[in-house]
Amino acid sequence: MTEAQDLGFIDGCRAIAGAAHVLTGDDCAPFLTDWRGRFTGSARAVVLPGDAAQVAALVRLCARYRVPVVPQGGRTGLVLGSVPDASGDAIVLSLRRLNRVRSVDPRNRTMTVDAGCVLHDVQAAAAAHGLLFPLSLAAEGSCTIGGNLATNAGGTGVLRYGNTRELCLGLEAVTAQGALWDGLRGLRKDNTGYDLRDLYIGAEGTLGVITGAVLKLFPQPKAAITALVALGSPADAQALLALAEAACGPTLTGYELMSDVCLRLVAGHFPALPRPFPARYPQYALLELSSHESERHGTALLERAIEAALEAGVARDAVVATSIAQSRALWAIREHIPLAQAAAGKNIKHDIALPVSRIADFIAATDALLEDAIPGVQVVCFGHLGDGNLHYNIAPPAGIAHDDFLLRQDEVNRIVHDSVVAFGGSISAEHGIGALKRGELARYKSPVELGLMRALKAALDPLGIMNPGKIL
Amino acid sequence: MTEAQDLGFIDGCRAIAGAAHVLTGDDCAPFLTDWRGRFTGSARAVVLPGDAAQVAALVRLCARYRVPVVPQGGRTGLVLGSVPDASGDAIVLSLRRLNRVRSVDPRNRTMTVDAGCVLHDVQAAAAAHGLLFPLSLAAEGSCTIGGNLATNAGGTGVLRYGNTRELCLGLEAVTAQGALWDGLRGLRKDNTGYDLRDLYIGAEGTLGVITGAVLKLFPQPKAAITALVALGSPADAQALLALAEAACGPTLTGYELMSDVCLRLVAGHFPALPRPFPARYPQYALLELSSHESERHGTALLERAIEAALEAGVARDAVVATSIAQSRALWAIREHIPLAQAAAGKNIKHDIALPVSRIADFIAATDALLEDAIPGVQVVCFGHLGDGNLHYNIAPPAGIAHDDFLLRQDEVNRIVHDSVVAFGGSISAEHGIGALKRGELARYKSPVELGLMRALKAALDPLGIMNPGKIL
Repeated sequence: MTEAQDLGFIDGCRAIAGAAHVLTGDDCAPFLTDWRGRFTGSARAVVLPGDAAQVAALVRLCARYRVPVVPQGGRTGLVLGSVPDASGDAIVLSLRRLNRVRSVDPRNRTMTVDAGCVLHDVQAAAAAHGLLFPLSLAAEGSCTIGGNLATNAGGTGVLRYGNTRELCLGLEAVTAQGALWDGLRGLRKDNTGYDLRDLYIGAEGTLGVITGAVLKLFPQPKAAITALVALGSPADAQALLALAEAACGPTLTGYELMSDVCLRLVAGHFPALPRPFPARYPQYALLELSSHESERHGTALLERAIEAALEAGVARDAVVATSIAQSRALWAIREHIPLAQAAAGKNIKHDIALPVSRIADFIAATDALLEDAIPGVQVVCFGHLGDGNLHYNIAPPAGIAHDDFLLRQDEVNRIVHDSVVAFGGSISAEHGIGALKRGELARYKSPVELGLMRALKAALDPLGIMNPGKIL
Repeated sequence: MTEAQDLGFIDGCRAIAGAAHVLTGDDCAPFLTDWRGRFTGSARAVVLPGDAAQVAALVRLCARYRVPVVPQGGRTGLVLGSVPDASGDAIVLSLRRLNRVRSVDPRNRTMTVDAGCVLHDVQAAAAAHGLLFPLSLAAEGSCTIGGNLATNAGGTGVLRYGNTRELCLGLEAVTAQGALWDGLRGLRKDNTGYDLRDLYIGAEGTLGVITGAVLKLFPQPKAAITALVALGSPADAQALLALAEAACGPTLTGYELMSDVCLRLVAGHFPALPRPFPARYPQYALLELSSHESERHGTALLERAIEAALEAGVARDAVVATSIAQSRALWAIREHIPLAQAAAGKNIKHDIALPVSRIADFIAATDALLEDAIPGVQVVCFGHLGDGNLHYNIAPPAGIAHDDFLLRQDEVNRIVHDSVVAFGGSISAEHGIGALKRGELARYKSPVELGLMRALKAALDPLGIMNPGKIL
């Protein structure tokens, strides 16, 4: 692009979004660095449109000038999916001004929202109608629902309510040609042609830009009961899950696994947090049960399941929270694991999924492979066991500097991801691919699957302007 | 194709599937007529491959000879999706020999099956492990899981468990080029690229052939409780649904609506079935609650919800089944509506979905439009109200012959479907498009959405050999 063309393009952006909403030069900086601060890209401009029609007009302009478009929500992604590359060719298209809850339909249990709504605001708008939007994850105060949809975000409520994909009934999106597709249907059944909705969901902005969505809401449970159960092994954690699911059915809404390594890490860095058990155990499960009847009903049901597990020798000890404060304190242990890890120094992270039945075998096998390769290596393993999703993070052996250890990232990734694939798992459970795991995707996907994905990309974005360098 | 080419093609089919599994001439007849007997097509041959590799080889052969492929499961579809057109160009590719349950993983709550497994056999295989596969519909003794997936079948369990789409974790499919895609992953989280699974699901065989699937299983509830509630209006049915959902949460697993017209029709044609109430009421709701605790727990919970509805004036009368036989008898009333309609003569059927909140207004408005156009017309309206899915069927006024009435099908469809779209609904909730509703799809979908669908079809099936004339 010549300088004159560039000026013409920027003027075009200003004409569409208003001059105040087109940032250039140093003003772009807050939009260019990823959440963990590992990479800073460059952009021709950052444009903040005010509505979906402006998004469509901007994409048409970008198509005309062949300018790459990097859609951006709350910029909380963990795989470099929402920041531009270093070339400076792209614009960042920030959706943050599209932040209206358009409507709530309590009788249909749906809500229609702009893509730039912050997840926490979506949850609050549902709660204001006595309803639940169950998507819940650490970044909920900053991430946007559009980003959650683009990455098919997971979190702690998937066991009962599914991923973001399952929480969306309808979608509005701008195609790579800049056409506005209105698929904002609030229907629980609709078999009229190809499933465009689920194609845009999880595509990380590489096929188009999500501008709005119809979300599924749920009746608000009357009480949530939390328990922490001490266990001898990951196999016991699997057995307890099966037992709790059979006893509690859909009232079991959360099931998290944490190893003793995780609890010690949290205790070391956050000594004010409670230590629930006088003794130490190899593993712990955090259970959440939601009752639509009463707190008493939920507590009795969860206690019965845990007593059965203690009697069967599956569980070794347990605490059931008797107040909201106690429940929060138990969750706080789980939520402080990533913070404690960050405080302890850099580590090599993996967001993996496995069949639930293979978790224990995977952990045993992969721990051993890592110990063989790097004696003394520390595995910090926790996650959403109910969904088969582990955050299997690797820290250096004592005495090895964290930065030196990071140089072995490729070697560690190969051991872990080869093992994941051997156990029938996924190298990205809930974070997506972005630019970070693009090489890993190419390595592990079959040629048939890669070919199908490339055919879809070429069909829907023939100019290749939508978030290039992400996923494929 | 010359005669010699045709012989070469048929020989090729025999070489792949075995001569005994390639039918020609009159032997094809049982595969050519649709379930309701409204249309009989013609085929070059019916081929019954024995495994997915043979399916792939057959599709490659068809691609080479440019022979259209019509995938067929149990042939129970209602929209002419699985029978060939009259040209005789296509082969029918019957999946019925692919009927193995490949494996069950109870701890992962998944089952891997061939596409040709009959739904009832899938349910039974899950039950043999104490687990539930919740897809349930009238044709379950004949339909195949591959057909359920290809049409994203709905049924009576959607309120709690979702459509077939939500019950499938992984897929195996043969592309239009005859490549075998192995996406048989049993994972509850997997964000590694585009959602190919959901693209093949619901595509009615127009993008490829589904040959296998990993299905989600659920803990088996300990008891299912059924109740029939008499109501004053569709608006009361909506109010009762909201009340029951708030009180029962996810234990409410079924919610069906039937009008008094439906009950009188059933009573007239099946006088041996019970009449649950001494008086008549305008509408009835059939509720099913599933308890993971006990029959006593489930009954008490459902009775509390119904008592609250009676006190609030939302419900007028109610019976809660006290035995499995009573429960079956209540369901039998619901299940006999389509049979009673068939016995009464031909009618004009609509399988529609609406936002649950708009059902009552839709029924009132559309009933009035039809009465204006055709005085005395009979609306036989029932369906899965919990999912917003109505079977809104129209029978002739008294004294008008059914065959004469059918001549007004286009006029009736226009009134009903225009109204559906005006109320934000779908012209096909759970049956799909097939060849039958292709014109309606083209009429009601936006140019943007049709353009996206055509781009996907051209990208994945550039030769246009996969089930041509269906959907698009």
